[in-house]
Amino acid sequence: MAGYVPGEQPARKRLIKLNTNENPYPPSPKVLAATREAVDGRLRLYPDPAATRLRTRLAKLHQCEPENILVGNGSDELLAVCIRACVEPLRSVAATRRGAATVQYFDPSYSLYPVLAETHGARRHAVRLDTDFGLPTPGADSSGSGWEPRAALSLVTTPNAPSGRGYRTSELRRLCKATDGVVVLDEAYADFADENALDLASELRNVVILRTFSKAYSLCFQRIGYAVAHADLIAELAKVRDSYSVNGLGQVAALATLSDRAYYRESIARIRTSRDALASSLEVLGFRVLPSQTNFLFVEPPALSAEDWFKELRERRILVRWFAGQRLRRYLRITIGTDDEVAALLRAAKRILAA
Amino acid sequence: MAGYVPGEQPARKRLIKLNTNENPYPPSPKVLAATREAVDGRLRLYPDPAATRLRTRLAKLHQCEPENILVGNGSDELLAVCIRACVEPLRSVAATRRGAATVQYFDPSYSLYPVLAETHGARRHAVRLDTDFGLPTPGADSSGSGWEPRAALSLVTTPNAPSGRGYRTSELRRLCKATDGVVVLDEAYADFADENALDLASELRNVVILRTFSKAYSLCFQRIGYAVAHADLIAELAKVRDSYSVNGLGQVAALATLSDRAYYRESIARIRTSRDALASSLEVLGFRVLPSQTNFLFVEPPALSAEDWFKELRERRILVRWFAGQRLRRYLRITIGTDDEVAALLRAAKRILAA
Repeated sequence: MAGYVPGEQPARKRLIKLNTNENPYPPSPKVLAATREAVDGRLRLYPDPAATRLRTRLAKLHQCEPENILVGNGSDELLAVCIRACVEPLRSVAATRRGAATVQYFDPSYSLYPVLAETHGARRHAVRLDTDFGLPTPGADSSGSGWEPRAALSLVTTPNAPSGRGYRTSELRRLCKATDGVVVLDEAYADFADENALDLASELRNVVILRTFSKAYSLCFQRIGYAVAHADLIAELAKVRDSYSVNGLGQVAALATLSDRAYYRESIARIRTSRDALASSLEVLGFRVLPSQTNFLFVEPPALSAEDWFKELRERRILVRWFAGQRLRRYLRITIGTDDEVAALLRAAKRILAA
Repeated sequence: MAGYVPGEQPARKRLIKLNTNENPYPPSPKVLAATREAVDGRLRLYPDPAATRLRTRLAKLHQCEPENILVGNGSDELLAVCIRACVEPLRSVAATRRGAATVQYFDPSYSLYPVLAETHGARRHAVRLDTDFGLPTPGADSSGSGWEPRAALSLVTTPNAPSGRGYRTSELRRLCKATDGVVVLDEAYADFADENALDLASELRNVVILRTFSKAYSLCFQRIGYAVAHADLIAELAKVRDSYSVNGLGQVAALATLSDRAYYRESIARIRTSRDALASSLEVLGFRVLPSQTNFLFVEPPALSAEDWFKELRERRILVRWFAGQRLRRYLRITIGTDDEVAALLRAAKRILAA
């Protein structure tokens, strides 16, 4: 098998990095101070394997119990944990039970999903999103390529990446209710959206909400994600998680983040404002910009192919993401940067168009 | 299934914690300074998924290439990675091929091994170490409970935990050569031993050496372990590893550790000296102390049962580890602490014996 290929992390300095959906703003000064202060003799000790303080604070924030929360080494670990806990390897099940071995996800969505499914020996079932990346209607497709209500695990990026499209909670509820297996709503970008589906974690027993501190909370470096779900489901997931997977300084930083929410509300608002402004400016230049509920834009560029735009921008030291697949090759995915980075991108785009 | 039960991480302060084999000494001042300095705006960025700088430095240290090294989120993650890469789920293989689904390990050894094997749906094969915890001779046992040369993966803690016994490289070489599958030599405690088997990673294509920064390098909190093996094997392991699993501050701290080796040589020497002194003192009190090549002692206490010793010590705010299993219930595992902690342990032991 081939492994997952992460977005480029260039060693070159002074590159404008709009390719991996990182937050352009640093963590709050209070978070940095709290993390620095924790760098002392305690580093010799194992971190709390249950991340108790962090779970308690998250439970308060989300009006649930600590037993409804599992903290992981980024939400990537929790995706793998969900697969291990919910899905049987394909070769171990009878043909009539292949739903028990199925990991279902949308095409396009997070390209790590099929890699994790393959690693587990699961059956991969990619359900094609319609042309504007809207959700399918369960049961509407009888061709065999539609949504399978019996899939042991379904992974739904909401808002969707790479398209940036958001989904209504009512639509997601319908999808989850029509599904027998566990449905993970991967809300990595939910903080940038108008609504989120967190309520479904308490409403439906088969729903896992995944959140991360990487995007809206500027903590990629420290790998903290979490799952919210029914306590029984969380208990099963916890059994197959590596007990010490969540590093201690990450726990400290995440806890401090929850004590400084005003700072993050402001930086999230700033990113949303920049996003909408950049969308308008790119439209003026002839780009087709898809509606975004995330911290990035998915755009169809004018004049040149998306691949050529990717190369031209890279020559001007601006890194965006281009996906080579048949369906996505027309698009570029552009992370919202600082005001200066966005201005530099627009200047470069104008020069490329003029050339 | 039941999950792994980690050693107790008590919330109570002023407890003497000799139960999870942590290093009693903090990381070096230079490591703390380098880590503190790295707590800045970079936290918003993804860490290097390949841990390139750390791998380059480790390669230099071990006189191999960066391609021979894989860094993980503690060596616990790398154990799980080895199982996922090398072992097929039992229900997916024909009866004649059950070796392909077998994870083999010694009893007693690290209690996480069977949990990881069960999570993967692998067949677990526990090979009983002889009464003094020495290695078996491959092929000598025809009862079916001996060493299986066809096991897809064998996990060998060397020096052994919880017994503390070390193994000669020549013995380990013989065992690895007699095995078709991959053999992991889990050298978590090797820095405290008289010899290590690192050379086998370059000598034999089926050997993976696991090392950690948690024990000798006082970085439990930051979760850094690594594997050393043939480049082809490392490449396969890397494919099933979560690409961003190694947090950034952990990479910074580990790198700084490698630049201050004199500090750690000294603290390792100190622990070895304390270990040997504590062993003598406990023997004087009537304890049977097994030879140790690690940072802990495995002892059979006099007068009371080991379980009662565990409880008595706990009442005196001293935490050691006691294992409830049939074979281990006679023993206590005691981590080497600071001089003050060791003195407190001895005082408590004398009082318990006097009572």
